Amino acid sequence: MKVEDVRLKGFKSYTPVKQVKKLLSSKIKKKSAETIKTTTALGRIVAENIKSPVNIPSFSRSAMDGYAVKAENTFGASQRNPKRLKVIDKININEISEKRVQDNEAIQIPTGGAIPNGANAVIKLEDVKRISSWIEIYFPVHPFKNVSREGEDVKKGQVIIEAGSVIRPQEIALLLASNITEISVTKKPTVALIATGSELIEIGNEPQIGQIVETNTYTLYNMCELYGAFPTRLGIVKDDEFSLRKILEKALQYDIVVFTGGSSVGEHDLIPYILNNLEKSEMLVHGIAMRPGSPTAIAIIQGTPVFCLPGFPVAAMTSFEVFVVYTIRKILGARELDPRPVIKAVLTRQIPSHLGRCDYVRVKVLYDEENNRYLAEPLRTAGSGIISSAVRAMGVIEIPENSEGYEKNSEVNVKLYLPR
Amino acid sequence: MKVEDVRLKGFKSYTPVKQVKKLLSSKIKKKSAETIKTTTALGRIVAENIKSPVNIPSFSRSAMDGYAVKAENTFGASQRNPKRLKVIDKININEISEKRVQDNEAIQIPTGGAIPNGANAVIKLEDVKRISSWIEIYFPVHPFKNVSREGEDVKKGQVIIEAGSVIRPQEIALLLASNITEISVTKKPTVALIATGSELIEIGNEPQIGQIVETNTYTLYNMCELYGAFPTRLGIVKDDEFSLRKILEKALQYDIVVFTGGSSVGEHDLIPYILNNLEKSEMLVHGIAMRPGSPTAIAIIQGTPVFCLPGFPVAAMTSFEVFVVYTIRKILGARELDPRPVIKAVLTRQIPSHLGRCDYVRVKVLYDEENNRYLAEPLRTAGSGIISSAVRAMGVIEIPENSEGYEKNSEVNVKLYLPR
Repeated sequence: MKVEDVRLKGFKSYTPVKQVKKLLSSKIKKKSAETIKTTTALGRIVAENIKSPVNIPSFSRSAMDGYAVKAENTFGASQRNPKRLKVIDKININEISEKRVQDNEAIQIPTGGAIPNGANAVIKLEDVKRISSWIEIYFPVHPFKNVSREGEDVKKGQVIIEAGSVIRPQEIALLLASNITEISVTKKPTVALIATGSELIEIGNEPQIGQIVETNTYTLYNMCELYGAFPTRLGIVKDDEFSLRKILEKALQYDIVVFTGGSSVGEHDLIPYILNNLEKSEMLVHGIAMRPGSPTAIAIIQGTPVFCLPGFPVAAMTSFEVFVVYTIRKILGARELDPRPVIKAVLTRQIPSHLGRCDYVRVKVLYDEENNRYLAEPLRTAGSGIISSAVRAMGVIEIPENSEGYEKNSEVNVKLYLPR
Repeated sequence: MKVEDVRLKGFKSYTPVKQVKKLLSSKIKKKSAETIKTTTALGRIVAENIKSPVNIPSFSRSAMDGYAVKAENTFGASQRNPKRLKVIDKININEISEKRVQDNEAIQIPTGGAIPNGANAVIKLEDVKRISSWIEIYFPVHPFKNVSREGEDVKKGQVIIEAGSVIRPQEIALLLASNITEISVTKKPTVALIATGSELIEIGNEPQIGQIVETNTYTLYNMCELYGAFPTRLGIVKDDEFSLRKILEKALQYDIVVFTGGSSVGEHDLIPYILNNLEKSEMLVHGIAMRPGSPTAIAIIQGTPVFCLPGFPVAAMTSFEVFVVYTIRKILGARELDPRPVIKAVLTRQIPSHLGRCDYVRVKVLYDEENNRYLAEPLRTAGSGIISSAVRAMGVIEIPENSEGYEKNSEVNVKLYLPR
């Protein structure tokens, strides 16, 4: 498929965001898995369902410091009519009693201790009175009171983590408790990041008039890390066809290729033109019904998604959040395609929008303590070049194609930026 | 300050969570700063206000591909009465025109190009008709239309990031654009993690009856990483006074010490007893009005906070989230002491609680598409030993001391776990 050459003409039409995602979705394949140590798996995506090979706990344990008893022996106990049980043994943690609890007997046991044979409940230390080798009990306990039964947390063979889940600290705990010290996770998609533009200079240099310090690849590098991909900066390339073709060839060794700049309608916006005329290239879209980010182009070259994002920092971030993050998470097979949390907030002023275009409005989020609600304050910006607006923002409001915007005081959904 | 020895007796009273935090807060000092490369600063906390040494943009630039004009010359232009301007030059990106735009003249300019002398607005390429060396304009543009003025994003000397802020991808972009390639961030607090209990075995070993695979230090290790600290596992220590005193001495070289296990009322729960009797130790609390996590003890030894958390995995996690995360973030000088996002959700069933105790209830969060709201489903668990409940959970509801719980269908705040 080819798209129209828009250079020096402008876009004739824009494709809706949803349709672009659908096109992308049909082209992206989940990546293969790799086996890694469970202890290093934080943030990784589980490749296939994981079953526990063991019961957790692996034996019935006491949940309290106390006395293991037959629950039946405590029935009828009260302040007025205490029951007396004989303490026949005392075990430490990690010990097993060789004795069996018979009627009206008890064995002293610590939290986590193995429930002795014959006992089916534990009565708490502080709930009894110890009188030499006897205890007095003032109320009954039901069977399995204060007992963590074998397999009550996890049963052998049970699926404990589903494919597509992200590994958090608690998943690591459960896996290790199940004696699973290695797991299969999806390999991280590799992302090549290339900035294009003859005006760009490397960070740390003083820009002359007409020059700009290149920052997009650094922003996107860190966003890749947040969303689970493995980025590489291929650096800055000038707007000439030879250099662009050469870097593209190199970049196609990665799972995802991201260009910033050179995606619009200028004479030197060569990348969509190059992609359009490349053999084996399938152009998915050029020009998307969104703001910021409309001059985005996407092609599939030999199975590899190639994104040409606008050069303006906020437009590049937005288009990356909408399409590249989606692609990364699809390749990972992640259940959450967009892990950003969504909160409801009340708009402090009206936001107008156009029918047929998806708008992404950055907002500050404030907590209105009096009314126990969040307020969203749209950031006034002159354009998508304003990086400082993304710094002031805590999240983004998406205004869909079918909306003309939101009134002041209306309740809206805010997608929060990941907390770091 | 000393606290009462509770071994074999039980807690006589519990200190409210708020009071514990207040006590902690008065004892914790912000850590010193270190200088790091901006490109490696993701997730770090800014130590002091950062000012930009430059204007961004550093020169007035075109925001569009088009023609630089005097806005005044376009006034009155319409479809019927187009204005004609002579194109006197064309600059590429990174070039400066040596010509000056005079009345009824224009210079062709790419997005990002330096606005030529004499011009004050840009008219878009696709909005004009080019006729040999002339352009026809069909509507007026106002001064500064499509111009990013020097300093419009950031003014030289302006505070661009405040002390206590977390560095996200967009902060990195803004810093680099300001030519700030190194920044001052708070040093990460170091955390020593020690598991105590004679029943504990290292991961990867098959537990015998009475034995438990130790997982808490791994959970807390990863939580430290999520919340910005630098953890070290000092491993497993048996419940004997000599070993515990020895490891404590070593652990006091870290900024924060965290023990798990051995904090309750059993005979072998030695750590609070040891801390209580140590010279230079100030015991802040033992026994907190919370569930899970009540048998938590906290001491300050020579300025170092020492936490004794319960051994049950979910209790350890909860107490860590409430007190250790708070301490880490205070030491970091972070503006957000708890970076977990909070959403509103409707309870799918009632949660009872006790007056005078803070309850932490893990919930699954479901999206109710029909009503555009979240539902919170409390996880039924038999106790704080159930790690799988933390795995099923997406967040936590805090029920404060002054509440007896929440009714079914009531709206509650859910603190979401960080997305990884």
